[in-house]
Amino acid sequence: MLTLYVGPHTCAMAAHILLEIAQADYRAEMLNFGAQQQRSADYLRINPKGRVPALATERGILTETPAILLYIAQTHPQAALAPLDDPFELARAQAFNSYLCSTVHVAHAHRRRGARWADDEAAQEAMRRKVPQNMSDCFELIEREMLRGPWVTGERLSMCDPYLFTLGTWLEGDGVDIRRFPRVNEHAQRMAAMPAVQKVLALHRGA
Amino acid sequence: MLTLYVGPHTCAMAAHILLEIAQADYRAEMLNFGAQQQRSADYLRINPKGRVPALATERGILTETPAILLYIAQTHPQAALAPLDDPFELARAQAFNSYLCSTVHVAHAHRRRGARWADDEAAQEAMRRKVPQNMSDCFELIEREMLRGPWVTGERLSMCDPYLFTLGTWLEGDGVDIRRFPRVNEHAQRMAAMPAVQKVLALHRGA
Repeated sequence: MLTLYVGPHTCAMAAHILLEIAQADYRAEMLNFGAQQQRSADYLRINPKGRVPALATERGILTETPAILLYIAQTHPQAALAPLDDPFELARAQAFNSYLCSTVHVAHAHRRRGARWADDEAAQEAMRRKVPQNMSDCFELIEREMLRGPWVTGERLSMCDPYLFTLGTWLEGDGVDIRRFPRVNEHAQRMAAMPAVQKVLALHRGA
Repeated sequence: MLTLYVGPHTCAMAAHILLEIAQADYRAEMLNFGAQQQRSADYLRINPKGRVPALATERGILTETPAILLYIAQTHPQAALAPLDDPFELARAQAFNSYLCSTVHVAHAHRRRGARWADDEAAQEAMRRKVPQNMSDCFELIEREMLRGPWVTGERLSMCDPYLFTLGTWLEGDGVDIRRFPRVNEHAQRMAAMPAVQKVLALHRGA
């Protein structure tokens, strides 16, 4: 059985939702971020980066959301969660997830994790001020250029959809109204209507 | 034929080296970053993100280094550049590349691209001050936990090696001595000895 280590409402929710959609044999271990459990000695033995998600498999630990999402898709082929037999389409899906992890997640992280990149408080405050604009720019690009519709990669739900959905749930806290992006908003509502997504959201809200 | 859009010494050098190693049928189009060619109307039609790399294929444009690296590996199977038939090992390789794009590249970018995340100069200066420490922390983790040796994924050169090599070439400018990381340094020297790498480095130095 797989074990996914998650934190409430973190990017790990993407892999959590994908496991649920794939009807995978897994359990989710919710870390207590309030108590900094992701920095505990026990967890650092699982993921020395002190971050979530981490996925414990029979062969060892996997980290990094784009890698975990593709792993879930590859090991649950019946769920058809990625264009595995088409290198070009797979690369497009991967490019989408890579943009989310390297640009969108990073833009968001400057609101509460600015201490990663500057020590002084005034600099961290300057970063926080720019987050709404940066997140807006990212989602405008997604709206205009990336979201093919109705799902991220087109006609089929894929490993990209829970990831977009998860990062979209951060917009309100980042001071951005998701309704400015009608196609992204419609996608979020379509995701939120799925029982698998509702189940995971309830677990994260209760954590 | 593939066309790879690159900028000198940018992360696009990773895909450039991998194409060379794969003996791919490609040409490299070197953008003039001094003249901000990556922001020109012509280039924004190729990649609306205004970044490199972009890979023009017969079926369209691909972006984002981890996606392009896997695409090159999948479409040049004779070069055996990724563990394509083993989802767990592929996920480990992907996690490595994902860490480079979402954490290491981002840590480096706070030296000269701080304006992405804060408007005021004092904040950007505060970011610059933290870059040596952050890059050191990243490469310590790579040295200790990630580089299996002699190549990133173990006994075989893979799509991960040109990416690590490329980001390693940034250390000196970031104020970090690569010799503090003996295994990373040995890896860099092994890469630099390859004719394919020397050819690409010469093109980037001359650009």
